[in-house]
Amino acid sequence: MKYPKPLSDLSHELSLLPGIGPKLALRLAFFISQRGEEKNLSLIEALQNLKNIKKCSQCNALSETDPCEICSDPSRNNEILCVVSDVRDLWKIESTKSYSGRYFVLNSLIVPLEGIDPEKAGMTELFSLIRAKKPKEIVIAFDFSMEGQTTSLYIKERLSSQRDQLGYIPQLTRLAVGLSMGDNLGNTDEFTISQAILHRQKI
Amino acid sequence: MKYPKPLSDLSHELSLLPGIGPKLALRLAFFISQRGEEKNLSLIEALQNLKNIKKCSQCNALSETDPCEICSDPSRNNEILCVVSDVRDLWKIESTKSYSGRYFVLNSLIVPLEGIDPEKAGMTELFSLIRAKKPKEIVIAFDFSMEGQTTSLYIKERLSSQRDQLGYIPQLTRLAVGLSMGDNLGNTDEFTISQAILHRQKI
Repeated sequence: MKYPKPLSDLSHELSLLPGIGPKLALRLAFFISQRGEEKNLSLIEALQNLKNIKKCSQCNALSETDPCEICSDPSRNNEILCVVSDVRDLWKIESTKSYSGRYFVLNSLIVPLEGIDPEKAGMTELFSLIRAKKPKEIVIAFDFSMEGQTTSLYIKERLSSQRDQLGYIPQLTRLAVGLSMGDNLGNTDEFTISQAILHRQKI
Repeated sequence: MKYPKPLSDLSHELSLLPGIGPKLALRLAFFISQRGEEKNLSLIEALQNLKNIKKCSQCNALSETDPCEICSDPSRNNEILCVVSDVRDLWKIESTKSYSGRYFVLNSLIVPLEGIDPEKAGMTELFSLIRAKKPKEIVIAFDFSMEGQTTSLYIKERLSSQRDQLGYIPQLTRLAVGLSMGDNLGNTDEFTISQAILHRQKI
């Protein structure tokens, strides 16, 4: 038995999305086909409106406006630049309300094995921005992974080798390493614990 | 931090679907916003094409055509009518390729507590069809639940009380009760086992 074609077509389209298997896809398609027409129109409209999302020409973040809300906010601190490898990390940091500087979103971390070299990762744009804005501090906020470390090291080396072109050396910082909320020592890896001891904080 | 509005709008629309929480909704919305435009157009088109799904005026099934493929297929056996409470049960039975009769899809099982009386469940249409087509056998294929039993009993009573109007009494059957593939006796309820013993089959 074939399902009605519109249903199996929608089910197929949904099964292309991450985390949606064929069974859930069919269930969703059936649900959508049975609910009121206006709700489907809202969903269609939301999909069509995605084309209004732009990349900010200054920081590379996704936004409805160019420059984005953050780049066009005069109250943000121009002296600190936070570099992230994914716009979702920017959103996550913003949600903590603990950072008020500027951002730059790389296209990706540097992953030589996948052919993502510094150029593809967006380093040219990052260094143009640094030359233009001369932030005093650059905060590296990457995942704590091999690629994160590699990319972080690349930025550090390039900053010191371009000292003359830049005319100064910005302070380079990274997110603190240590225990996370709810961690217990028994389940935490040795490296994290050794870093947490090294950078222990006064209470 | 607010996400770009088109993204949070789509994420909201997706979170209205069953089985999709806010986190998966955001992940899906982000994925959809980042993939190629044509793929989104296919998804939008699939959603728009849902309006081509009709209800078959004979059997109540969902189909692209009216009458549906099954009702308009002359090779199907007119003498058996299978009554289901959900079009997905029809699709499931068809996928087994073990039934070649006709169908009727109720709007719902009878659920008095939720105000779904025989009229709302679609009994008027079912009995008009029986009067018109006079099938020799009516196969009841409902979920094995309280509501399924109630609805099945209702059909049985109404058939015998309308014997004169109908001019005959069709044979009423139900799906066999017994062990399912892979069941072991230890985990099977007593009622199912007692039915499986009562209706034991020659091998």
